[in-house]
Amino acid sequence: MTTFLPFGFRHGGMHCGIKKNGDPDLALVLSDRPCTAAALFTQNRFAAAPVVYDKEVLARNANAVRAVLINSGNANAVTGEAGLANTRRNAEALEAALGLESRSVLIMSTGVIGVPLPVERIETAIPVLAQAAQADADGFHAAARAIMTTDTRPKSASLKAQIDGREIRLAGIAKGAGMIHPNMATMLSVIITDATVPPELLRLALRRAADRSFNRISVDGDTSTNDTVILLANGAAQTPTIEETSSPAFEQFVDALTTVAGILARAIVADGEGATKLVTIRVSGLPDDHQAHRIANAIAVSPLVKTAIYGGDANWGRILATAGNSGVVFEPNSAELWISSATEPEHFGERMQLVANGMPLAYDESAATAHFAHPELLIDLSLGSSPGQSEMWTCDLSHDYVTINGDYRT
Amino acid sequence: MTTFLPFGFRHGGMHCGIKKNGDPDLALVLSDRPCTAAALFTQNRFAAAPVVYDKEVLARNANAVRAVLINSGNANAVTGEAGLANTRRNAEALEAALGLESRSVLIMSTGVIGVPLPVERIETAIPVLAQAAQADADGFHAAARAIMTTDTRPKSASLKAQIDGREIRLAGIAKGAGMIHPNMATMLSVIITDATVPPELLRLALRRAADRSFNRISVDGDTSTNDTVILLANGAAQTPTIEETSSPAFEQFVDALTTVAGILARAIVADGEGATKLVTIRVSGLPDDHQAHRIANAIAVSPLVKTAIYGGDANWGRILATAGNSGVVFEPNSAELWISSATEPEHFGERMQLVANGMPLAYDESAATAHFAHPELLIDLSLGSSPGQSEMWTCDLSHDYVTINGDYRT
Repeated sequence: MTTFLPFGFRHGGMHCGIKKNGDPDLALVLSDRPCTAAALFTQNRFAAAPVVYDKEVLARNANAVRAVLINSGNANAVTGEAGLANTRRNAEALEAALGLESRSVLIMSTGVIGVPLPVERIETAIPVLAQAAQADADGFHAAARAIMTTDTRPKSASLKAQIDGREIRLAGIAKGAGMIHPNMATMLSVIITDATVPPELLRLALRRAADRSFNRISVDGDTSTNDTVILLANGAAQTPTIEETSSPAFEQFVDALTTVAGILARAIVADGEGATKLVTIRVSGLPDDHQAHRIANAIAVSPLVKTAIYGGDANWGRILATAGNSGVVFEPNSAELWISSATEPEHFGERMQLVANGMPLAYDESAATAHFAHPELLIDLSLGSSPGQSEMWTCDLSHDYVTINGDYRT
Repeated sequence: MTTFLPFGFRHGGMHCGIKKNGDPDLALVLSDRPCTAAALFTQNRFAAAPVVYDKEVLARNANAVRAVLINSGNANAVTGEAGLANTRRNAEALEAALGLESRSVLIMSTGVIGVPLPVERIETAIPVLAQAAQADADGFHAAARAIMTTDTRPKSASLKAQIDGREIRLAGIAKGAGMIHPNMATMLSVIITDATVPPELLRLALRRAADRSFNRISVDGDTSTNDTVILLANGAAQTPTIEETSSPAFEQFVDALTTVAGILARAIVADGEGATKLVTIRVSGLPDDHQAHRIANAIAVSPLVKTAIYGGDANWGRILATAGNSGVVFEPNSAELWISSATEPEHFGERMQLVANGMPLAYDESAATAHFAHPELLIDLSLGSSPGQSEMWTCDLSHDYVTINGDYRT
């Protein structure tokens, strides 16, 4: 796959000594000029030190960020004042190594929590990594690899887009999050662009893109200690500044950003711990989107639904019962349920109906099982004729999920 | 264990042809005189036919119930009008077989959903079962066995209690519910007593007892299509009628009922699908009990916490992060976490502190692991100095849970 890297960025990844097995554990994304920056952070009450630090930086300096430094293997969470001092110390070490201005570096951490960050190891590695960072795809993919924890593969996406007829580039890396939903394993992503976007529009664009990507796999408040998505725009494409949210340029930018974020979000789900299937859940017909979302979310997190999907069992009963249990009021007799599987990624074939008017149809069990045995499937539930709808992406719950999570720290 | 059966009841269980493997699948609890009755039902929007039917009966006839007929193997849920007609038909068949008045029989069903109830098989068995029902422990345990689905063992409890110095008896049977929490496998229980309690006081007593037993394992609205707890009081002990909620007699009755319900509820959790450990979660220090309950509940349902417990991993980080993720506001630095394991059932030994002031202590890892390896453990989390508290009972999430639920229908 061709990689379309935004101009003016360098990237790198290396092993600095946090992970015992010698895997890469330190990543750098570096711009050759100041970036505008926006970010979304965890809502968890135990927000990790880098989350606290980055919020401070962005509050003061969202116009002049130069780099993001990410370590894996240690979350620097539940580490108190010492943890915050360690984050600051690493940021300042990178600023010193590159001669950057104060508060121009953002930090991300992921890994075990409650263990002091091995700050000296990171500090020693910083000049080496800064020196080694490359503008090419090798550097980009090295960064994607160095942020992994229980991920089985690196996750990245990039594209060229036209904004007012001028070309810009967007690229992102991400790491995954356990069974993703409803839990505490960390989701991190850094997305970069060479478009020119003021901070307030960048924030708005990120929020809108996340609502159609990262927030489909992780609900408000349903976040780990470290979850963070950072978006940097360095303007190196020298395209006109996007000035207005009402402009076609802004819409084009949001669309391109949503595409990149969507690819990363789906890659995170597909690589959920132990996941064997990627499941899209659509719920429609409710009075408003929020109610549809509550139901889609209830289905997406249900261990009974997720184990049935793992077993390849077209268990429509568990899906309906989960909807009925969501706390949302609807007419049971209105329930219609279809399933489908992907003919190619994100493209689903003809839907097969399992439930009509709240009752099971006499469907072909082997055809239904074939859909549920497919690695990418769609569950489509309608509960009325109102316009409210929602879509969530989830994965199945397998034996390997239990193995991985029953034995994570040891 | 001695069984203290209330006077004036007979019980039985048999195979009527619903379960393919020939296991018992029809149970009867029968009083020789009219009972007052109270019940708690699922909040699920897809409430099953017997739930709808029993609500009708209790609305009209809570003073004169004579029997509860329970089938396992088929939930008679998502079966529409035909399902409701089938429930009614079975109730009327039992009334006819025993010469009972109309609407004196309550029905419970549990098993697969969306499949028509084999109503003729049940109808054929009813006179046989009614004839065979016995007043002794054999009949009682046969009934407990016949209501099982994925349960690995029958669940029952009984006791003698003093009310105003006079002896009454309480006994109950129950069946379990998948991983219990947060899902759709059905919890059923029938509790009987020979005390004399008017319907309105019986309802109040059941609600209060359930709040300290069944509702600790299954939250409001967090219920299957069929969940039902029925309480019958036939007055055969000929003790004075309990007249007032303010009376010592009512308190004594609620205490005894809570004890029976608590034994059954804990037995359900301990026999959760694939469960290897029974876990008590205490949360305290919040401004009110509701906030404490939200946190205890979040911990009790977290797949990451439950897999860590399965793996015997004293993973305090996941417990704290789940609390931080519950949506409840608290001061992270106030967090104190202790663990302990049972020296005998329900009695926990000295607590070991893992977290103080929101930070991990330098505790003895092998001692902590020993607690987490124990089959009955206590997780005790304090998040401040306010009086709000809650306690939940849950189990771990094991490989067997995935096996059982990935292959339930087939």
